[in-house]
Parts: sequence; structure tokens; C-alpha cells
Amino acid sequence: MHFASDNSGPALPQVMAALTEANTGYAMGYGADPIMTEVRQHIRDIFEAPEAAVYLVATGTAANSLALATLCQPWQTVFCSPVSHIHEDECNAPEFYSGGAKLTLVGDADKMTPDALRAAIEAEETRGVHGPQRGPVSITQVTERGTIYSLDELNALSAVAETHGLPVHLDGARFANALEALGCTPAEMTWKVGVDAVSFGGTKNGCLGVEAVIFFDPKHAWEFELRRKRGAHLFSKHRYLSAQMQAYLHGDLWRESARKANANAAHLVAGLKGIPGVSFAHDPQANMVFATMPRAMHKALFAAGAVYHIWSGSLEGDDPAAPVTARFVCDWSIPREEIDRFLEIAASAV
Amino acid sequence: MHFASDNSGPALPQVMAALTEANTGYAMGYGADPIMTEVRQHIRDIFEAPEAAVYLVATGTAANSLALATLCQPWQTVFCSPVSHIHEDECNAPEFYSGGAKLTLVGDADKMTPDALRAAIEAEETRGVHGPQRGPVSITQVTERGTIYSLDELNALSAVAETHGLPVHLDGARFANALEALGCTPAEMTWKVGVDAVSFGGTKNGCLGVEAVIFFDPKHAWEFELRRKRGAHLFSKHRYLSAQMQAYLHGDLWRESARKANANAAHLVAGLKGIPGVSFAHDPQANMVFATMPRAMHKALFAAGAVYHIWSGSLEGDDPAAPVTARFVCDWSIPREEIDRFLEIAASAV
Amino acid sequence: MHFASDNSGPALPQVMAALTEANTGYAMGYGADPIMTEVRQHIRDIFEAPEAAVYLVATGTAANSLALATLCQPWQTVFCSPVSHIHEDECNAPEFYSGGAKLTLVGDADKMTPDALRAAIEAEETRGVHGPQRGPVSITQVTERGTIYSLDELNALSAVAETHGLPVHLDGARFANALEALGCTPAEMTWKVGVDAVSFGGTKNGCLGVEAVIFFDPKHAWEFELRRKRGAHLFSKHRYLSAQMQAYLHGDLWRESARKANANAAHLVAGLKGIPGVSFAHDPQANMVFATMPRAMHKALFAAGAVYHIWSGSLEGDDPAAPVTARFVCDWSIPREEIDRFLEIAASAV
Amino acid sequence: MHFASDNSGPALPQVMAALTEANTGYAMGYGADPIMTEVRQHIRDIFEAPEAAVYLVATGTAANSLALATLCQPWQTVFCSPVSHIHEDECNAPEFYSGGAKLTLVGDADKMTPDALRAAIEAEETRGVHGPQRGPVSITQVTERGTIYSLDELNALSAVAETHGLPVHLDGARFANALEALGCTPAEMTWKVGVDAVSFGGTKNGCLGVEAVIFFDPKHAWEFELRRKRGAHLFSKHRYLSAQMQAYLHGDLWRESARKANANAAHLVAGLKGIPGVSFAHDPQANMVFATMPRAMHKALFAAGAVYHIWSGSLEGDDPAAPVTARFVCDWSIPREEIDRFLEIAASAV
Repeated sequence: MHFASDNSGPALPQVMAALTEANTGYAMGYGADPIMTEVRQHIRDIFEAPEAAVYLVATGTAANSLALATLCQPWQTVFCSPVSHIHEDECNAPEFYSGGAKLTLVGDADKMTPDALRAAIEAEETRGVHGPQRGPVSITQVTERGTIYSLDELNALSAVAETHGLPVHLDGARFANALEALGCTPAEMTWKVGVDAVSFGGTKNGCLGVEAVIFFDPKHAWEFELRRKRGAHLFSKHRYLSAQMQAYLHGDLWRESARKANANAAHLVAGLKGIPGVSFAHDPQANMVFATMPRAMHKALFAAGAVYHIWSGSLEGDDPAAPVTARFVCDWSIPREEIDRFLEIAASAV
Repeated sequence: MHFASDNSGPALPQVMAALTEANTGYAMGYGADPIMTEVRQHIRDIFEAPEAAVYLVATGTAANSLALATLCQPWQTVFCSPVSHIHEDECNAPEFYSGGAKLTLVGDADKMTPDALRAAIEAEETRGVHGPQRGPVSITQVTERGTIYSLDELNALSAVAETHGLPVHLDGARFANALEALGCTPAEMTWKVGVDAVSFGGTKNGCLGVEAVIFFDPKHAWEFELRRKRGAHLFSKHRYLSAQMQAYLHGDLWRESARKANANAAHLVAGLKGIPGVSFAHDPQANMVFATMPRAMHKALFAAGAVYHIWSGSLEGDDPAAPVTARFVCDWSIPREEIDRFLEIAASAV
Repeated sequence: MHFASDNSGPALPQVMAALTEANTGYAMGYGADPIMTEVRQHIRDIFEAPEAAVYLVATGTAANSLALATLCQPWQTVFCSPVSHIHEDECNAPEFYSGGAKLTLVGDADKMTPDALRAAIEAEETRGVHGPQRGPVSITQVTERGTIYSLDELNALSAVAETHGLPVHLDGARFANALEALGCTPAEMTWKVGVDAVSFGGTKNGCLGVEAVIFFDPKHAWEFELRRKRGAHLFSKHRYLSAQMQAYLHGDLWRESARKANANAAHLVAGLKGIPGVSFAHDPQANMVFATMPRAMHKALFAAGAVYHIWSGSLEGDDPAAPVTARFVCDWSIPREEIDRFLEIAASAV
Repeated sequence: MHFASDNSGPALPQVMAALTEANTGYAMGYGADPIMTEVRQHIRDIFEAPEAAVYLVATGTAANSLALATLCQPWQTVFCSPVSHIHEDECNAPEFYSGGAKLTLVGDADKMTPDALRAAIEAEETRGVHGPQRGPVSITQVTERGTIYSLDELNALSAVAETHGLPVHLDGARFANALEALGCTPAEMTWKVGVDAVSFGGTKNGCLGVEAVIFFDPKHAWEFELRRKRGAHLFSKHRYLSAQMQAYLHGDLWRESARKANANAAHLVAGLKGIPGVSFAHDPQANMVFATMPRAMHKALFAAGAVYHIWSGSLEGDDPAAPVTARFVCDWSIPREEIDRFLEIAASAV
């Protein structure tokens, strides 16, 4: 009953097998391995973007920070949601990599709205050289609250960005989960709705640690390569990044894995809906569920060995009915029986 | 006949097996995995340093840059050899991570001498607030030219540093190769000769991508953790770093692997010594060989499929006897027969 | 009728005279001039802080950025008002000087409240190494909206900071104006209410360009000196900074100048209160007035040659009664007759 | 007998008068003052560069660091002399402002030679993404040893830079002294010999604290303005920078002042040449003299109240004839009688 994060489960067996398979003979390092050539082409094909610049790094924070730094000058500000990973969970990595750019928080929710974005952009740079200058818009898809922007919503946001000549970055740490939820193509969720650069996550969806960074305009390629090296994110034995991504993409494994994760979460949500006293803090649209439950229910679940993070409220206190919200993340690997067992315990705790 | 680098060979099978073994069940991320607890203890035991702060990152440049940034203020300068990796091969990563510190190049060779180090230190900071301030001394062991500092030499360098109150960093990307060559203990090659922080390499000696950073004084621990996270080098699925290092250390695999690599290089050197017209640009003391050969010999070797980097001189030109220097790196995996075949071709090219 | 800013008027004649007087003979540079010795002592006396570290720079942004960088690690966040100068008007200088720290905006008004500050501090760093770490609190006094924190309010804010072990910085670009409005001593408005470092403004109150940075704990002294030099803010001919500050402090000129500025603003406010249709967007407590007037009134004023900045709303549009807010800043130099003329024109425009 | 530095003497009376004159009425801040419009045009005229972007800052380190940062990416290296001010005397300001670029030291003397520059450039960036990338060439004119590059020498250096597509920066802290020594026009010493950006010094030659930064290609203008503001070097009461520069340029005061300084140094040199036991460590071509004298002569001079910096060697020691080198800097203000008195004392000390 492990719902702590989609980074706490095991890697996909196919990914592990690919690593082992890649581990023979000699390969030039630093991205010059032949597997990377395949991966690059595969990603270009998937994204219908034959000119795209494609790179691999090992962490999502690296993907985001390096991509943003490439799109952003140090005197600019990045527009993002106040609950975005780049703002809340990267210990100032975007500020570090950009050389001191600012993050402007748009609205007060998981999803930015076009109106809030427009207002935030227009509020900046009314002061000439004195204020921060307008920089890229960064959109998180799936959001950090488990919700998803529709294609229309993405399009509307990037239209605002385009009006002001600002580039758009997509933090796709859970790219595949969003894609499966929307049932669209990678191109439809990115460059066709105005996205310029993507952090294309592999780690949370079954890899050991690999993320692609994709620029649809290859003019950013060389600068990104230098930033990656300078940031110490260029792997010498790069084939082990390439092999993960190769297996991840092969036979649409990445989509299948996300489908499983989303289905697991949907199963959890369906079960929770049937339990009195449980509600949802956010609409669970992908593989993350923010559920509010009575304190006593959490206690019963933890006592039974469930693992997950309390999000707001506290387990401490006298009132067993006090509402406490937790985050439950499902990956591809969580067995259906575990979810059912979890639901049984929760139901019994009513 | 692949001698391009010790990052172009495969990972050790035991390391790969450990990865696979680690790939079951759930584990908390970001360094909180139980394997890391073992690894930390193991490294403390190996180094006879029960209080040491121990961390893992995936690249040698990350290990070096993060360690140095922790020891160095932005207005200081790092004292290092002009051929050090941190100066020549990290695309300004030390400058980036330190927030703009300088590197002062000591002497003009692979190895710093105490006199040159003392002179360099004394030349800085004669100008009060105007000049760069004195910062850490960074020693590369094995050097980038395949040579090794003796324990006495290390001791003499750190004595100079200590006189001025400066910390000492050891870039041990090839730590194990040096240790085997010297036949000493990790403690003897580090804190017993005044080293404060170590980049303890795993990648070049048989891992996929893992390096430990060790601070003998744990006061640096929390700052390093924040720097690692901010640098995007904290792995979410950290167990895959831990597992590599666990296998690497288990049963002295790391030392055995380095012994093999060094022995391979020694075999290559012994063979080359018997070939007329071959000389050595640097004394080959570990697993790297800088050999000068007639141009025609290189041509014959490349024609036969040998892979390695030309270091100085050029294959272009009329004179078949023109001396051209190349770097040959041996890892644990290179088959003895391949070396012999290489030597035969070289000998026949005389 | 010039109300654009307190940086658009002339410098005080006494300050100019001191410059001329200082311009004889030779003086060692870089802060070693004898006038600086006097200035340092004078500021220590005024602040009843015999150990304070005292430095001069030429711009308010330099004072703020260097002071904050000295108190703040790159992985921390500075707590400040969303309308603070450091956030809105310094083009990311605090982020630059701190090496990429973040600014956390507290509340949505000119003045932070203790509750909002506490909430903001508690919201940060619930995520261990992942989120930004808590850093200094920066308070602007006079605020950018012309309001003033009472001593009780300052005390309450710094008590919150102290609970969490966070240092407190005071952006005192208009320090003297606040002091005069509160009628207290410099010590009472700073270290006695928990302030650790002060940007003590001279420029806006009658100097050409000089600000002091004061640390009550001298442990920050050497780091600040290095940061100032590295930031290119150490003047070679430092005596010309010292002389300005010397004259500014002499005979309480600084307080007299602020009294005049505040009185000028009070005269303006009193007059505006008598004019129908005029209201105040913020309570004018020092030398800045944010007044809302009918559009037609602004047009009449501009037509008559008045100079000031429109803050919100627009002069464009058909409705002559539409409310438009403007900022009016009074310095010591604005003649009373000019204010009266301004009021007459405004009154006639009703 | 003050020869410590050309920043220890007084400012020119005309500059001080201009400050006083500028101190009337209201002027928009931040570079929008009308005097700046005149100054910009005047500098464009002087440099025969009608499109040039022209800015003012208060310190030479700010001029150099901001100019270089505008020409340099963080992953590049700046080529400069090992005794350049940017390397030795700016406490890592260029590294700070550039976001962590490196400085590559060319040769081992005050003046770079084309051959040494070519070798240094060719040695960098043979390693693709791994090494620092080639960045701007920075030339100091007058050098920090009081010598001067001829126009042919400047041309040869910039030809090397141009071959590699690298921009050229001129650190002209003593621009006027060099110009007078060479007897050429500003255009001849800058863009006509391939210089792209100039730090045009005013401070050392009679101003209180003002330097112009000039880019001959105006494409750098807006970036520079943002860098200047972000670096806290944009003056609010900018007219006091403008007024200094206005007076400095008016009626060729700047050239006259430099002529005087050079003539003073020439007088000193001529006198020293007649004194047995005195030699010159560098050829004194402008207003700085590096003279080697017997220890006893220094002692006599210091005893008589002379002020200057010992450069190498020591006053401590038994041997009165031991050679000790000192730096003597002459500005416009040093009275001829003071120089003569100095020479008399030196001569008597033989």
C-alpha cells in the first residue's frame, strides 16, 4: 500500500533489461553513443518534429532548470503557478541556473488561467529598466495537484505568451500521464498549442532516472549543450541514459505505463467515492489523488502499513472526525489488490 | 582495441546485478533509501572516518563542483594544476557552482609542487580586498596525465595549505587506481595527509554513473545537501545510485577493478617499451598511458580499428616518422588479447 | 511643481560644499580616507552602536542587495512586501547579488503584518531540502506607498523573524523621513526593535548619491567588504562618498531635511483634502502622497507644467471625472509656493 | 610628494564646478537628464562613432565587469594579461558579473603579444563542450605596468581576435594618458584597430568617480542597461555622473589633464635617470613609473614624507643597497616642485 510518490516504485523491467543489454562493449561517451542517435530520432518522430533538439539528463529538476535557463535571461521573470515544482520543490534551482531570474507566481491555484497570466505579464515591466523583464511561461502538465490542462487551456495560455513574445516551457514530469488522460498526441499537447520546450519525464513513469529536454527550435541546441555540461549534467557513460529512454519509448511502453498508473488512480478514486466522509481536494485527473478523510481513517491506514504523505491538517488531535488531506500517488506498479486492501481498511474505519 | 577512455567500457557485472536486485518494491526517494544507509556506513568504515558526511551524485563534475563550492567562497580562488579536470574539462562548472570563484593555476605540470603551491598562495591576497582571496587547494589523484602523487607529496602539499588555513579537496575520479598504485589505505591517502573533502570516483572504474562526495568534517553536511538539491543533482530514485556504490564497494570489487585496470596499463606499457621509436610523455603510474609514436604507427593502429585520442601532434603530414602523442586509457574490461594485438600491430609498424 | 521623485531635486548646499571642501590634497582611496573614520564614528554614535560595521555605497539598490546577500544564502528566500523596492524596482539585483535566492512576497499590501509574515515563513521549508530555505526578513521603512511601520509593528515583525532565527534587514532609503514621522531615535527604529542590518539612505534626502550600510553585529564586516568590492561598489576616490555623508549627518542636517520634506507633503495633503473629488489611496505618513483625482484635474495640472507619475488609471479616455491615481513625492527643496500653486490649479479644475 | 595612485589626488576644479552648476532645479533621474544627452553626443563625436551606445557608471571595475559580461557568455573565457586589473584587482568581479566565466592569462607580461594570444586562443576549445569556450579579448591600455600598446600592436591583437570571431574590450582606465602618449585620435586607438567596447576612464584623470562604457555596435545597448541596473550601478541622481563627464570632456580638459600627468611622470623619470643606482622595471610610457632604487633611498624618501607603494622587495633588511622596486603614479595635480623635492632627496640618498 505504497502511495508516497511515483518515484518510490521500481523501474519497469523492460527499462532494466535495456540497461543490461546496453552494458556490452565500448561506446563513446557524452552523448555520442549510437543509442542516443536512435532515441533522438524516436523522439522527433513521436513529436512530429524532425528538427527538434533532443537531450537527456537524469533529473527532472535538471531538465526544468536547464530548459528554463536557456529560454530566460537573468533579468527576466518566469511566469508559473504558485504550486509549480520549479517554485516549491527545486530549492531555487531555476534561480541558480538562470543566473538569478525571478519567478512570478500567477494566480493562486494549481492551474494558471489566461486572465491571471495576462494580468501577471502586464503587471511586470511597466517600469522600464527598473523591474524584472518578462520571461518564459512555464506550465506544469500534469499539475502538482493531479489536474490537467485541456488542449484549449494550453492553447489559451500560450496565446497570451505569444502576444507578448514570450516562450513557453512545459514541465512534463508526468507528460505521459497527461497525454493518456487527454488522449491526444505529443505534438497536439506541445508545439501545436504553442509550447517551445518540454521537460519530457521518464523517471516518474518507470525509468531509473532519465528526462528528455526537447526544443522545437534547434537554435537553442548548442547553448543547451554548454549549459548541461557546465551544470555537470552531461553523463560520461551516456549510454545508460539513452538505453533507459530507448526502452521507455519502445513499443509505446511509456504510454502503457502511464495508462496503468492512471487506471490505478481511477480505481482508487472510484473506491474512495464510495466511502462516506471522503472528499477530494482537487479533481483527480491523472495519477495523483488529493483526498480528505477523517483523522481516524488515516490512523487506521497508517496502522495497517499504508505509506503516503499528509498534505494538510494533522494526525495529532483529539477529534477523530477532523478532516485531514493526503496525497496518494499511483504508479504503474502498484498491485490492484493493494489498492483494494487500502480501500477496505478505509471503509472499515468509517 | 578500445583505449579512448575509462568511461567507454561497460559497467561491472556485479554493479549491474545490484541495480537489478535493487529494483524491487518501494523505497523512499532522495537518499532516504536503506541501501544508502549501508553505503554511508561502508564508506565511513573504509575511510576510518566514523563522522564523515557521505553523499552520492552521478557525475564527476558534479562531485568536484559541489565539493569545491562548499569549501570555497565566490571571492576566493581555487589552487589547482593547469591540467586539472576542474580547469580544463568542466566548461566552467566550478566557477558556476561557486558563484564566480577563480581558479589559480599552479606551476605548469600535471603535479603541483609544494614550492609552486606556496608561491601561488603567497602571490594572491597581497592586495587586501582588491585581489581574489585564497581558497581551497584541489589535488587530482591520479592526475590527468596518469601520474600519481606519493603520500609524502600529498602531505607536503596539504602542509602548505594548512599553513594558510586553506582546505584541501582531492579529485579522486580515479581514486581506486591511485590507491592500488600506492598500496595504501583510503585514510592514508586522504585525511591522514590533510585532505578535507574527496570526490570518490565510481564511474570510471566500473559503475554506470556514481561518485561519492566525502567530507571528513560533517559540519559541511547540510550545506552540501542544499547545494546538491539546488544543483539538480539529488536523485529522486536514489536507490539506483546507492545500489551501484554498494556493489562497487562490496568485497573490495572497487580495488580489484582498479588493480585490473592498472595491470592492463602496465602490460601495455611493458609492451610499448619494447617497441623502437615509442616513448612516454608522462610516467605511466596508473591506468593512463601517454605514448609518443611515429605517425605511421598510429596510422597502422587506426587502420586496424584501434580507438584512442591523439593528444598532441597530428596524423596529417608527409613524414611517417613524425612523433605524435596519444592517450591510451585502460579500464578493467579490456581483454589482454586486445592489448597484445595492439602491441603486435604497433611493433609491425616500425 | 516637480513631484516626480525625491531623486529629481538638487542636493543640499551643505553637501555640495562638503564635496568641494574635501577636494583638496591627497587622500588614500578605497575607504581609507580620514573623513570615513569620522563618518563611521558618527553613525555609530547616532545609532548608539559602538561596534557596528559601517560602509558607504552610492546607490540604494547596492545597499539593499549587498546587505541582503550578506545575510542570505543562495538557497534561501527573503521575506518582503510585494511592493517592496527590492522586488519591484531593482531588476533582480537581490537575486543576482545573493547568487539566486528567492523573494517570498508576504501579504498583498505595502506593510507586512506579523500574521502574514508568520504564515509565509511557516509555509516555506516544510519540504526539507526540496523547498527554498527560510532567509532574512526585509522591511521597507518608509514603505513604497508612503506609509510607516510603528515601532510596535516593527517589533512584532522582528519577533516573528526571531522565533525562526531569521535576520532582519531594514530598507531605509527614506530612513530619515520615517524617523521624523515617528519622532524616535535611530536605535529605537532599528536594533532596539530587532533590526540586524540597515540600508541608511542619503540620496533621496539631499545627497548626490550615498547610502550607508550598517550591520549591528560586526561579524559581517569582512564579508561585506569583499562583496562590495566584488560588486564593483568600492569607490577608489572614496572621500567623495564620505564627504557627502559627513555633511548630511553634521548638525542633524539629515533630520532637518527630512522634516522639511515631510512638512511639504503634509502641506500638500492638507490642501488636497480641501478639494472635492480628491482622495488618498494610502495614508500619507511621510513625504509621499498617493492621491486619486478626477482625470480632468490631472490634465489641468500637467497642462500647467506639473511633473509627477500616474500610478493607476489613465489620462486617456472620455470621462473627465474618471478617477486616476498619481504619486507625488516631496523633497526638502520644493518651494511652498509651488505647492500652493499646484493646489490652486487642482482646486480650479473641480 | 604623493605618488600612491592617480586616485588619491583631488578632482579637477572644472569638474567640481560642473557638479555645483548641475545642482539646481529638477532633473529626471536614471540617465534621463539633459546633460547625459550632451555627454552621449560628445563622446560619439570624439570617437567618430555616431551610432555608439554610451553609458556612465561610477567605478572602473563596474565599467570593466559590465562591459565584459555583455560580451561574454558564462561558459566562455576572457583572454587577458596576467597583470590586468580585471584579473588582479577586482576581487572576481568579472567572474561575478559574467555568471562564472573564466579568465585565461595570456603570456607572463604586462602586454599580450599576438603570438601568445593566438596560442592561448587555440589551446582553448579543442575539447568541444568540455572546455571553456573562447570569449572576448580584454586589452589594458595604459597597462598596469605603465606601458602602452602601439596602434600596430593593438591592431595585431584584434586581428587575432577577429580571426576567431572574438570581440575586443579595451580597459581604458587611463585612456587619456595612452592617447596623449600615442598622439592619436580616440577612433584610431579603438574601433579603427578593432576594439568593440571601451571602458573610458574619468576617475583616475581628474573626476570624482565616473567612467563611460562605449559599445561601437549599439546592439548591446539594452542588455547593458539591464545589466547596469541589475548590478545596482544605475544612478538615480544621474546628473552628477553626467556633469562630471561633461566638464571632463569640455574644451579637451581630459586630454590636457592627461598631458600634465604624463609630463609630470616624464619629469620624474628624467630626474631619476640622473641618479646613480636607479633603474626602471618597466618602460615608463605614460603616468606610472616602476623604479628600482637602493633600500636606503626609499628610507630617506619615506622619512621625508613621500607616499607611494613598494612593489617588490622589502624595506626590511640590513643591506642599504638592496634593490627595492616601487610604483610612482603621477596625476595632473602633483606640483612640479614636489617632484623636484623628491628627486633631490633621492639624489642625496646615494
